[in-house]
Amino acid sequence: MFVFEVRYSDLAARVGRLETPHGVVETPAFVPVVHPVRQTVSTQFLKKMGFGIVITNAYITLRHYGDEARRRGIHDIIGYDGAVMTDSGGYQVLEYGSVEVEPAAMAQFEKDIRSDIPIPLDKPTGYGLDYERAKEYVATTLKNSQETLDVVGNTDAIWVGPVQGAEHSDLVEHSARELGRMGFKLMALGSPVELMEAYEFATLARMIVAAKKVIPAKPVHLFGAGHPLTIPLAVALGCDMFDSASYMLYAKDGRYMTPNGTVRLDELVYLPCQCPVCSSHSLQELRGMNGDERVIEVAKHNLHVLKAEVDAVKQAIMDGRLWEYVMQKARAHPKLMEAVQLFKDIEMLESGTPLFKERAIFFYDPIDQHRPEAKRFRRAAAGFQSSKKKLVLCPEGEVHPFYSTRSYREIVKRLPDAQVCSYSPFLGIIPAEISDIFPAAHNLATRYGHRPEDYPTFIESLKEFVKKFEQVTIIADDFMEQAAKAARLNARLVNDISAL
Amino acid sequence: MFVFEVRYSDLAARVGRLETPHGVVETPAFVPVVHPVRQTVSTQFLKKMGFGIVITNAYITLRHYGDEARRRGIHDIIGYDGAVMTDSGGYQVLEYGSVEVEPAAMAQFEKDIRSDIPIPLDKPTGYGLDYERAKEYVATTLKNSQETLDVVGNTDAIWVGPVQGAEHSDLVEHSARELGRMGFKLMALGSPVELMEAYEFATLARMIVAAKKVIPAKPVHLFGAGHPLTIPLAVALGCDMFDSASYMLYAKDGRYMTPNGTVRLDELVYLPCQCPVCSSHSLQELRGMNGDERVIEVAKHNLHVLKAEVDAVKQAIMDGRLWEYVMQKARAHPKLMEAVQLFKDIEMLESGTPLFKERAIFFYDPIDQHRPEAKRFRRAAAGFQSSKKKLVLCPEGEVHPFYSTRSYREIVKRLPDAQVCSYSPFLGIIPAEISDIFPAAHNLATRYGHRPEDYPTFIESLKEFVKKFEQVTIIADDFMEQAAKAARLNARLVNDISAL
Repeated sequence: MFVFEVRYSDLAARVGRLETPHGVVETPAFVPVVHPVRQTVSTQFLKKMGFGIVITNAYITLRHYGDEARRRGIHDIIGYDGAVMTDSGGYQVLEYGSVEVEPAAMAQFEKDIRSDIPIPLDKPTGYGLDYERAKEYVATTLKNSQETLDVVGNTDAIWVGPVQGAEHSDLVEHSARELGRMGFKLMALGSPVELMEAYEFATLARMIVAAKKVIPAKPVHLFGAGHPLTIPLAVALGCDMFDSASYMLYAKDGRYMTPNGTVRLDELVYLPCQCPVCSSHSLQELRGMNGDERVIEVAKHNLHVLKAEVDAVKQAIMDGRLWEYVMQKARAHPKLMEAVQLFKDIEMLESGTPLFKERAIFFYDPIDQHRPEAKRFRRAAAGFQSSKKKLVLCPEGEVHPFYSTRSYREIVKRLPDAQVCSYSPFLGIIPAEISDIFPAAHNLATRYGHRPEDYPTFIESLKEFVKKFEQVTIIADDFMEQAAKAARLNARLVNDISAL
Repeated sequence: MFVFEVRYSDLAARVGRLETPHGVVETPAFVPVVHPVRQTVSTQFLKKMGFGIVITNAYITLRHYGDEARRRGIHDIIGYDGAVMTDSGGYQVLEYGSVEVEPAAMAQFEKDIRSDIPIPLDKPTGYGLDYERAKEYVATTLKNSQETLDVVGNTDAIWVGPVQGAEHSDLVEHSARELGRMGFKLMALGSPVELMEAYEFATLARMIVAAKKVIPAKPVHLFGAGHPLTIPLAVALGCDMFDSASYMLYAKDGRYMTPNGTVRLDELVYLPCQCPVCSSHSLQELRGMNGDERVIEVAKHNLHVLKAEVDAVKQAIMDGRLWEYVMQKARAHPKLMEAVQLFKDIEMLESGTPLFKERAIFFYDPIDQHRPEAKRFRRAAAGFQSSKKKLVLCPEGEVHPFYSTRSYREIVKRLPDAQVCSYSPFLGIIPAEISDIFPAAHNLATRYGHRPEDYPTFIESLKEFVKKFEQVTIIADDFMEQAAKAARLNARLVNDISAL
């Protein structure tokens, strides 16, 4: 029986549990790529570090071990007793154009070696392929995938549906829809490696959204996502797993991961990291090591950075501050910043966002008016019914909820027959009666020169709300004075409560 | 002889070397507070972690050890052979109102125990003191400081000038100026602990700027700055050292530091850190430890976070990306975001910023038009002289410098008698002839819906530049179309080069 249990969520991200024949994998999970023949960072080390799942290559295993692998099983071959995912040669197809094995034979082999999470032999679209050829690759992948299911029948293994189509969103959708119909429970999005190497994060985001739209609930794996900048973005958009050999490839290339990207070891002046590698060696020691030893140490460091990134993202989900985390991370690279601009229009981010959060959320700048919590609040406020004919609007103070403030009590004393509301650039108009609902009373906002032209949602909320009243009085700060002008309000503006 | 050597700088931050009688201290330096009687995290551990300087309390040392400390010296008392700074009881004055010792006696004692960096007995203003009393405290501190110099005469020790005045900027300036005149070489800014506890980062920033304006070159220590959010801000504004007992105080209070602030150990679900403490224990193990052991382990973790933060800031200075680092960090808390808004008007940030940087700088959003590199470039472009009468403006592409692009060659072919320039929202007008100077050819910018109203420096640069020409043609994108309108340009707007 297939079990994927979502325990917490924020935006489209989930903290979940995926049950496999070799143990439960907690997601989001980074899945290190392990070479079945010449792996240098041992699988024991990976397990000890806390990686409960690895991915290895079934095609290489077949070519190198053949029947021996069938006899011993893939877990024994790579010396690992956690969950093992197997790629099927798709990577080789992408690199060399073809492999010398048929999809049915490959499927049988993956079954024979007892892979926990096997992948049908797919034909990756990569990136930059013209539409017609991409369509053809998708068709081949779908055909292979159906053939695979026919060959392997019912097993405990979790067979992966390989979603192809790359930057052609309609192909991605088609691909995901068809694989869903075939009965695949776990989807994998391929193979945006080139996209990520070109830092085309916005295209990557669109591709993930295209797939998730069709299969919102199923767990999704993202192939080849091993750059520290990609992880928060991919998780926020709903990816639950991602594999990569980057820790090793970068190490071989002398590249040292940091939370903000990679740096050449030559360019470092400090080791800005406290992982066990960096806190037990100086930069000079690391540089002075012989080649192989240095590669292994840097690879271990890279694994620590990836692990810490995944854990930080998980903690951000638990804290309900994944939006903040992603927006902060976006400032690690201008192209990542372009990708997160899309967040304001991605509807699916709302479904995973809890209705209530334990900790206050933070508002910084205009993009934050589009976060799911703010959208929801504006809908609630728009539906608010008042029996009063008079409306008084008052700026937000630091004290929450608004109905507990001195300003509120003062206004009610002066104008007992008025509907009283406060306002926030991020949330719009806040009726006092609902000023304790989330997040009206559970946010902390940067106060500095917000300008109404940057907050179209505010102007909209203001215009709609005042329509319900015959007489409107506003205790206006700079922001509201300009907003009232922009909204062409017919209202009386006063400086303070005493003028009511 | 006093030696403080600045090796690299960015904004007002410096990477430097401070020579003390017990070794060279590399700055920026975090200076852990060590208790002279009951220190739990050993000074040996601190030294091994890479902290080359600690601070301890001379007043407590006097009360507890008396003559024994005079005989053994402070290094022997605390078992530490690196640089030792000694606070003099100012903290006790702040907490309890007074101490039972006179400034002259305290100064003599600090001299007797061979402190490397002793501090005169000051009277800290703290925060929230009315102006008259703050003024009185500053006067007392200045008097004590002069008395101290008179008593101790010429020694190898680096006596610290304690700058007081808190949120009263003119008192801070007065204080720094007078201490400079007395001959103090190292200044220490006191004691913004309450400010930092209230997250009043903007006030803290103003206070640092007030002091630095008066003493731009001298090294500056910031008292009590041990919160991970404060460090990048303080360093960028020119603080070279900062001490704190936060690592221990937070640990006793069950608070676990993260790069984005502190979290209660109870609220953590993961250990989002790979320091030696967190990578050798699970959260469950850490929680299950007995009180003392847990406090020590969390304190060590906190020290690792502080160390990593300082190293990351140092690496950002070396990379020439401190502005990016600080702006990213600012999104860890809305009140930190308020503080960094001040950066656009802080003139002194320019003097430390190198004229040329090895790595490309990143532009994200409107605040980045105010970074020193952009200000400098706009000045250079404003001074640019052209002999041509015609001007053609063309949008920036991804290829740098502009004169090496196909667009540029095409325009020159069509209009050989025109001055050709490109433009960037962040840098303004870029004459092709200087499109290879820093940072015109050394930046990467986020491309998404920039709006001219957010870039007043651009409109200004545009208006001034076109004045020099009789005929202006613009190959306009959306941004420039609106900008031309806003600047009321008398120019011909075309869609592409073929229309020239």
